[in-house]
Amino acid sequence: MAHTAVIGQSGGPTAVINQSLVGCIEALRASGEVDTIYGARNGVRGMVEDRFVELQALDSQRLARLAHTPSAALGSSRDKPDASYAEKIFRAFEKRSVRYFFYIGGNDSSDTCRIINELAAAQGYDLRSFHIPKTVDNDLVGSDHTPGFPSAARFVAAAFTGDNLDNQSLPGVKINVVMGRHAGFLTAASVMARQRAGDGPHLIYVPEIAFDIESFVADVERTYREQGRCQIAVSEGIHDANETPIVTTLASDVETDAHGNVQLSGTGALGDHLAQLIKSRMDGVRVRADTFGYLQRCFPLAISEIDQREARNAAAKAVECALAGEKDGSIAITRASEDPYRAGFERIELGDVAAKTRTLPEEWRRGSNDIADGFLDYLAPLIGELPAVEHI
Amino acid sequence: MAHTAVIGQSGGPTAVINQSLVGCIEALRASGEVDTIYGARNGVRGMVEDRFVELQALDSQRLARLAHTPSAALGSSRDKPDASYAEKIFRAFEKRSVRYFFYIGGNDSSDTCRIINELAAAQGYDLRSFHIPKTVDNDLVGSDHTPGFPSAARFVAAAFTGDNLDNQSLPGVKINVVMGRHAGFLTAASVMARQRAGDGPHLIYVPEIAFDIESFVADVERTYREQGRCQIAVSEGIHDANETPIVTTLASDVETDAHGNVQLSGTGALGDHLAQLIKSRMDGVRVRADTFGYLQRCFPLAISEIDQREARNAAAKAVECALAGEKDGSIAITRASEDPYRAGFERIELGDVAAKTRTLPEEWRRGSNDIADGFLDYLAPLIGELPAVEHI
Repeated sequence: MAHTAVIGQSGGPTAVINQSLVGCIEALRASGEVDTIYGARNGVRGMVEDRFVELQALDSQRLARLAHTPSAALGSSRDKPDASYAEKIFRAFEKRSVRYFFYIGGNDSSDTCRIINELAAAQGYDLRSFHIPKTVDNDLVGSDHTPGFPSAARFVAAAFTGDNLDNQSLPGVKINVVMGRHAGFLTAASVMARQRAGDGPHLIYVPEIAFDIESFVADVERTYREQGRCQIAVSEGIHDANETPIVTTLASDVETDAHGNVQLSGTGALGDHLAQLIKSRMDGVRVRADTFGYLQRCFPLAISEIDQREARNAAAKAVECALAGEKDGSIAITRASEDPYRAGFERIELGDVAAKTRTLPEEWRRGSNDIADGFLDYLAPLIGELPAVEHI
Repeated sequence: MAHTAVIGQSGGPTAVINQSLVGCIEALRASGEVDTIYGARNGVRGMVEDRFVELQALDSQRLARLAHTPSAALGSSRDKPDASYAEKIFRAFEKRSVRYFFYIGGNDSSDTCRIINELAAAQGYDLRSFHIPKTVDNDLVGSDHTPGFPSAARFVAAAFTGDNLDNQSLPGVKINVVMGRHAGFLTAASVMARQRAGDGPHLIYVPEIAFDIESFVADVERTYREQGRCQIAVSEGIHDANETPIVTTLASDVETDAHGNVQLSGTGALGDHLAQLIKSRMDGVRVRADTFGYLQRCFPLAISEIDQREARNAAAKAVECALAGEKDGSIAITRASEDPYRAGFERIELGDVAAKTRTLPEEWRRGSNDIADGFLDYLAPLIGELPAVEHI
């Protein structure tokens, strides 16, 4: 019997979120169980506004190109459905006799899957509702890592590699602000730029550790004295011991969104304020700040091949579970083998992912301003080879 | 008879400046005319401080890796030698019996070559002094384009491609600030991201045209109304009709360097102020700004192969001219053939390059906020293929 499926994409896009979309489409088509595959435009927003596009007939050439295209081809959404919003989604599914629902997104998306599946269960409607993970922040619990993160980490590692060489040629203090409100994984990825003694980043600040402004200045002064330069990685989400974002303690005019979150991305404010601070304390030193911003998540020339494969396979696993009769779930990536690296994929409960945030484990941090070697072993196989550099 | 050569690197580094260094070393070695090749640490600074490193014995494996390493491996300098500084350089050359001097840099570097060669000529000292061009800004006169620019342009084109898809998935106003104080070539390279109708960048502002704040707001409002989103490319050097940088008209606390230049790179100030302006005028619209900063010039995963080859060949040409007995000169890249693209290399006078700035020709601009198709034809062969993207 032929069924109908809906696929949606949610939250901040990644460089491989379309790999998951294509993985979903291909697995559904291969099954022979589904004859209509709807893509919802702009995630849940398109579901309530009845904006769907049929995906089952896309030819293999377009699918191949689509898989390699960064960002969410269906459009994305930052809406977080409440009960009445979810009810509307469910009505849209009912109207189109949707049996399978796949939502590619972060932990909010897994919660959306859970709410809609509860509505379906309460009405005796047979819906299979699966969350397919993505996030550049790597902050989903239950997974070794999350699709989207390895590619963003590859961008950060490459950027720090080039910037370390740049800073070496024209020495000074260089501050680079990396995405990550609560989790420091992406900022920690900067450590991959260290290829030999003296390479930056010399200091790494993640949001898992309270940021102390005086310690920061002392760290930079000491490093500059010892190395003649200082390259710094800072998470956008660093905050003080009272959980106040540092961008707020340094600036007066910060923007907050509907959820009360301070705007961290799409502004150079944190980097600029930290640079001003160092300038005011270290007279005559060249101080510069770059904020990597949105470039990190969709840069088409820094995509990790492992990430591409895993984003596609995670989606295929979700389809497999749904077709096997599982009612709902999310997909976790496990590390099936360390050497050679091999990923595993397993179903976990939606409730294990929803509304939870994983942060950088303590054993991967070193003191207040560095990353431990264990993290390098963890990350290296995920991002792939970086170009070898040579020195004179 | 065996001679001595000095090579130096100057100014902001590029992704291919070490290709020129390696091209120089290889051509000098192949000639059999030179037995000692000194690299000056940090350009002219190392010459006056007697900081040299011998380069003639580097093995081919290290040279190959070095050529692919972004940024200036010898270190760079922003010093602009005056008469007494140049005198010191000449004394250092005399002391080491230097016959050949190759300086890889922008238009200031060509002036350094000129001053030192005049000193040599005045004293009857046989010095061959050559400038090898590099600059991400593409602002040297006399050349079709400049080594370093194609790779930086490839970064900008790739970044806008990914960011256009990002902005499409989560629509809003997105401002991206690109390097370029006086020349808009690098900002104009953003136009390569347009692959189909509706793609960004929708508005492009270069420093060749006076920037009018009210026209800018009107442009963004109109585009947003028509497209539902607006991706914008802005040169860091945009200024008003009185030549006052826009970052100065919008902000009160800008830094200036020893030459009185306002700090434009290494700060997000211009992007943030433009974003604030749009937010204050377009209520409720999502507005974000990224400043590409130093990432543009040394990113190891966006290097143009043509740029690598040309940077190396320009250096080889300089060596060829010097060995052939020319006293001095700079190397210009010409477009020997359009289709298929092929570069030519020719000697030009130092005075034709020194202290002059080339800007984006009028025929490549369209109105006050766009780039003409002729520029695409010019740039496309230089940056190489970009990944094909697919839409649904």
